[in-house]
Amino acid sequence: MNGDKRKAVVLLSGGLDSTTVLAIARHEGYETHALSFRYGQRHTEELVAAEKVAAALGAARHVVVDINLAVFGGSALTDDTLAVPHHDSADQISTDEIPITYVPARNTVFLSFALAWAETLGSSDVFIGVNALDYSGYPDCRPEYIEAYERMANLATKAGVEGKQRLKIHTPLIELTKAQTIQRGLELGVDYSWTHSCYDPVDGRACQTCDSCLLRSRGFAELGLVDPSFSSTSSANI
Amino acid sequence: MNGDKRKAVVLLSGGLDSTTVLAIARHEGYETHALSFRYGQRHTEELVAAEKVAAALGAARHVVVDINLAVFGGSALTDDTLAVPHHDSADQISTDEIPITYVPARNTVFLSFALAWAETLGSSDVFIGVNALDYSGYPDCRPEYIEAYERMANLATKAGVEGKQRLKIHTPLIELTKAQTIQRGLELGVDYSWTHSCYDPVDGRACQTCDSCLLRSRGFAELGLVDPSFSSTSSANI
Repeated sequence: MNGDKRKAVVLLSGGLDSTTVLAIARHEGYETHALSFRYGQRHTEELVAAEKVAAALGAARHVVVDINLAVFGGSALTDDTLAVPHHDSADQISTDEIPITYVPARNTVFLSFALAWAETLGSSDVFIGVNALDYSGYPDCRPEYIEAYERMANLATKAGVEGKQRLKIHTPLIELTKAQTIQRGLELGVDYSWTHSCYDPVDGRACQTCDSCLLRSRGFAELGLVDPSFSSTSSANI
Repeated sequence: MNGDKRKAVVLLSGGLDSTTVLAIARHEGYETHALSFRYGQRHTEELVAAEKVAAALGAARHVVVDINLAVFGGSALTDDTLAVPHHDSADQISTDEIPITYVPARNTVFLSFALAWAETLGSSDVFIGVNALDYSGYPDCRPEYIEAYERMANLATKAGVEGKQRLKIHTPLIELTKAQTIQRGLELGVDYSWTHSCYDPVDGRACQTCDSCLLRSRGFAELGLVDPSFSSTSSANI
């Protein structure tokens, strides 16, 4: 079954972007292998979402790797002593400085595991939902970073060195606005109520005021829609 | 205490090479932060050795990170269904092909964690004991790989982007033969009986016939010495 399909490893956090990327990889005809991480994040709602998304979008396999980035400290996403910032609207989010929710070297670590799995699968395709437009100031979401990673990866692996399997890191969202991402996902049948993006959920529900909630909410608003993760508290707007 | 020393993250497997590197970093005046991994390897003797080495060489901190590369399969070092190759002498080891003991993307994964810790510590120095001469055919031990990694890392991090902290990956052994590495370590006071390099230990002792045992044994022999990890069974040669 699916034996002649090309395999791809897709980094899947369970959020809006990576879910859209999984739908795109599937639409492009890949047999998808979804990869998530339990990395010391303060909440696990996104892993529950990732499992739901992987099943709904027909991933051939979904692996959750345990790594503990919290052992190093330094980010509000993994360190309980640092507070996640909250704002009233997305316009208040500074993109000039790197936010406290940045996890040191996170995409570098995640891509390294994707590379290991791709090599084992005999796959030359890794998908990641980074975005250079509303990337919230994370350095490891920029195109020049991805290009440098790809170059390094092709020197790192057995297959790359033997020239048999040139690794490509696919970043289908890199030039899209949040609204364009959502539109693409909706065209491909994504139901965004499966997803979870909030940095700081309250009783398992999106807080609506962290940077991640505000950016996705604004994306839906630009399409005249309400973010389904807010819908039960915003039903008047539907 | 040590407040004005520059900090370095040193990848420490507990083997001969990484132990020598830790001694070199210390000799160069760094406050050393030793990083080891429990990565699904078939035996844990090397982690016991790493702990001993970190203490003996005065590391400020030693962290062992749990990651499970075995979930992806594909290497004799993490997969019980694949056999570690054994030979009678180091001359029989092929360097033309990449051996089955290669773990997919291992150094890429390890360096990524080192990068995360370095960023959190405010360190711009990572040490790794790769070697381009008797590197046993691993692609991620070559200088061009290390250079590409360094370039990528400087695009990945907050400090790299802000230009405050340019990451340097130090590879003090890259041009050394095994014998030269051992000589350097001995000059710096390393006792190699602390270390463990064997891929396939029997009852916690070096097998003397895997590639790793044979390469280090030949290094000691070139200096007219007996590898202390073999000494109890080779005492006639001391």
